[in-house]
Amino acid sequence: MPDRDTKIHAMPLPPYLVPRYRGWRATTYAENKIWYRKLADEGQNPRIMAIACCDSRVNVNGVFSAETGDIFLHRNIANVVPPYLPDGDPHGTSAALEYAVKVLRVAHVIVIGHTECGGVQGCQHMCSGKAPELETKESFVGRWLDILRPGYERVAGISDETEQLRALERETVVVSLENLWEFPFVREAVEAERLSLHGLIFDIGAGTLQHYLPEEGRFVTV
Amino acid sequence: MPDRDTKIHAMPLPPYLVPRYRGWRATTYAENKIWYRKLADEGQNPRIMAIACCDSRVNVNGVFSAETGDIFLHRNIANVVPPYLPDGDPHGTSAALEYAVKVLRVAHVIVIGHTECGGVQGCQHMCSGKAPELETKESFVGRWLDILRPGYERVAGISDETEQLRALERETVVVSLENLWEFPFVREAVEAERLSLHGLIFDIGAGTLQHYLPEEGRFVTV
Amino acid sequence: MPDRDTKIHAMPLPPYLVPRYRGWRATTYAENKIWYRKLADEGQNPRIMAIACCDSRVNVNGVFSAETGDIFLHRNIANVVPPYLPDGDPHGTSAALEYAVKVLRVAHVIVIGHTECGGVQGCQHMCSGKAPELETKESFVGRWLDILRPGYERVAGISDETEQLRALERETVVVSLENLWEFPFVREAVEAERLSLHGLIFDIGAGTLQHYLPEEGRFVTV
Amino acid sequence: MPDRDTKIHAMPLPPYLVPRYRGWRATTYAENKIWYRKLADEGQNPRIMAIACCDSRVNVNGVFSAETGDIFLHRNIANVVPPYLPDGDPHGTSAALEYAVKVLRVAHVIVIGHTECGGVQGCQHMCSGKAPELETKESFVGRWLDILRPGYERVAGISDETEQLRALERETVVVSLENLWEFPFVREAVEAERLSLHGLIFDIGAGTLQHYLPEEGRFVTV
Repeated sequence: MPDRDTKIHAMPLPPYLVPRYRGWRATTYAENKIWYRKLADEGQNPRIMAIACCDSRVNVNGVFSAETGDIFLHRNIANVVPPYLPDGDPHGTSAALEYAVKVLRVAHVIVIGHTECGGVQGCQHMCSGKAPELETKESFVGRWLDILRPGYERVAGISDETEQLRALERETVVVSLENLWEFPFVREAVEAERLSLHGLIFDIGAGTLQHYLPEEGRFVTV
Repeated sequence: MPDRDTKIHAMPLPPYLVPRYRGWRATTYAENKIWYRKLADEGQNPRIMAIACCDSRVNVNGVFSAETGDIFLHRNIANVVPPYLPDGDPHGTSAALEYAVKVLRVAHVIVIGHTECGGVQGCQHMCSGKAPELETKESFVGRWLDILRPGYERVAGISDETEQLRALERETVVVSLENLWEFPFVREAVEAERLSLHGLIFDIGAGTLQHYLPEEGRFVTV
Repeated sequence: MPDRDTKIHAMPLPPYLVPRYRGWRATTYAENKIWYRKLADEGQNPRIMAIACCDSRVNVNGVFSAETGDIFLHRNIANVVPPYLPDGDPHGTSAALEYAVKVLRVAHVIVIGHTECGGVQGCQHMCSGKAPELETKESFVGRWLDILRPGYERVAGISDETEQLRALERETVVVSLENLWEFPFVREAVEAERLSLHGLIFDIGAGTLQHYLPEEGRFVTV
Repeated sequence: MPDRDTKIHAMPLPPYLVPRYRGWRATTYAENKIWYRKLADEGQNPRIMAIACCDSRVNVNGVFSAETGDIFLHRNIANVVPPYLPDGDPHGTSAALEYAVKVLRVAHVIVIGHTECGGVQGCQHMCSGKAPELETKESFVGRWLDILRPGYERVAGISDETEQLRALERETVVVSLENLWEFPFVREAVEAERLSLHGLIFDIGAGTLQHYLPEEGRFVTV
């Protein structure tokens, strides 16, 4: 390991996770060792890329009974796909999307929003002028949620705050679907029928999924 | 739902996922309904933020027997934390970090790298001049992996390619730990003993974890 | 500290525990300090209330790899839930249950019985007339185990003593589940789908768990 | 399994606990199987009885690096020992105490209070007239906390509410030590030098222990 100029701050694995990790190794890993080795040797070949929120209550692999190797999963605040902007700066979501579509050649990109999203609520407060701390240049959360402003404008007329929040949660998915379409490699893959796009809302408390049907212009329970 | 100017491309949920989702609802959801409702009503209060790779073979929740509500999970290509750059542009990883530390006040931020990482291999190829397509302004993957160039420089002298790749995988975690320390709110929380940082490497085929011990300057098997 | 009329008998911490406590502080506490402070500042929010026996061989937190903050744990002899009796007298188990369900709003109440239970064996001896010392008014153990008499009556016909004991151990869980249902606040929470009840038997020597399935009327290995 | 007249409400083990239990069996249990079987065959022989709070943040076995078989552990709200009252009614704490001292013949009874105790705070509110809902006959929590009223009276003169709460937390231990002394079998065992009594306060956030020294009339850091 080379010399370091920079001070590194790192602690060992939190002790309470050690028995859980050891338990996983002695059961799930031991029972699936052949598959894990095969995945390590042959590389991943996932069928799906999912873009979901970081929220600890959204378990994409769980909801789809997915297993190791099934889903290439990008998670950011409020499941946002930013606009296509090839300006030479780093864009983590766009990089993940490019890798999934061009290298892994996934068959589906699924954007999964969810109810009770703290990020979406922050966006609502910011856009309605109630969260000036999110409007500063230094607020990473605020600048990230700026991407959703076009969505807010579409629901700004809803007077009931909770109803507006529910609508804005759905709009995060729609804005992301709109932005997806601006990526040339996405459009090309969809037009070549190598890729399909999907938009979902997951209701945490009810455990239900809705998918967006563009021909109806709304979300419909699966 | 308001009018749309932009064409939206979205298909219903892929049919093969429907029975899996319905199965999840009839079993895991039904058996945990009370917990999910409580999480929806009361909000999340995760103890950990984890930053892991999008790779479909890395199942953070599985390895720690974690459940819905336990881990605030950001996943991007190569588990990168970018440098601190409050320039008013959107930075998804920095936004997730800010939300976790300042709003959720998690107790731990854990960076989890892994072996056989396609992103890290791309970085290796790019930095050694073997992947000119990643060096263009338009390559989102290339521009994202630029963040890891300081890590590459430290392992550039390793002549064996596989050995260099293994070293670079570890460096992704170290670079991210270094960058974490540049975020004022991270540093402040660590110094106030409200937050600890952790760096791990997960070996996909062997199912093992190593943690980074800065006092030894190396990764050690947990 | 105010004056005392009553003589207090108390010794310092037994010396052999001092190095163990100091070791815990220098390791587990030091590594989890951030989490413990957060728990102290924000209060507990456990997902589970467990009702287990005081027996030193039953380690509920261990079996579930649970950590500080996870389980609100009441332990009494033979994991008994007494009948609902709001007579104005102190009832420790009922108080713990009320606090867990009404104040903490836990999602699960789990009754955990175990094999080789000395309390249950005492109940068996008392109910079969072999332990007159437990039948006196002054016997706290006897009067406590009276609560399990309805369970004994159901197994009284089993002639093999060991087999009867095993059956009575299971009945302690069933009687407690029956009594739980008599508490209006438990019933209300279950009916509102805010709470679920669970009955387990832990086999100390075999290290196995069985759960009670009411639709089958029996315990089944997990 | 005999017929049931009463409806039983019970669900299977919550699914998220299943992998943790399986992990425990494959590691901790597998590595200690010989000891667990010995404990099952020979019965328990703990050296200590501990009386602690149900609070999920108080892990007595952890603090003393205790293992399966070491501590006979009774946990109730606010670590209360009620007055000696052999009236023929069930008293769970007194039963546990009697079993520990007379049957198991433990060498130590340790009462462990803790900071930030919700039960003690409830007692404070009730005794100062701020929690009328705890004063009803139907409140199990209130009637249980009545036992601590003599402790409240001693701290009633402290005007600062937080300071009063800290003092009352300590008084819960002192009241329990006083009540312990009223149990004839406890007094007899102490006088025969077969048993010693101990009072501790555990500070959750600071991870420290204090023990009560009657000759100084106060708690002193261990």
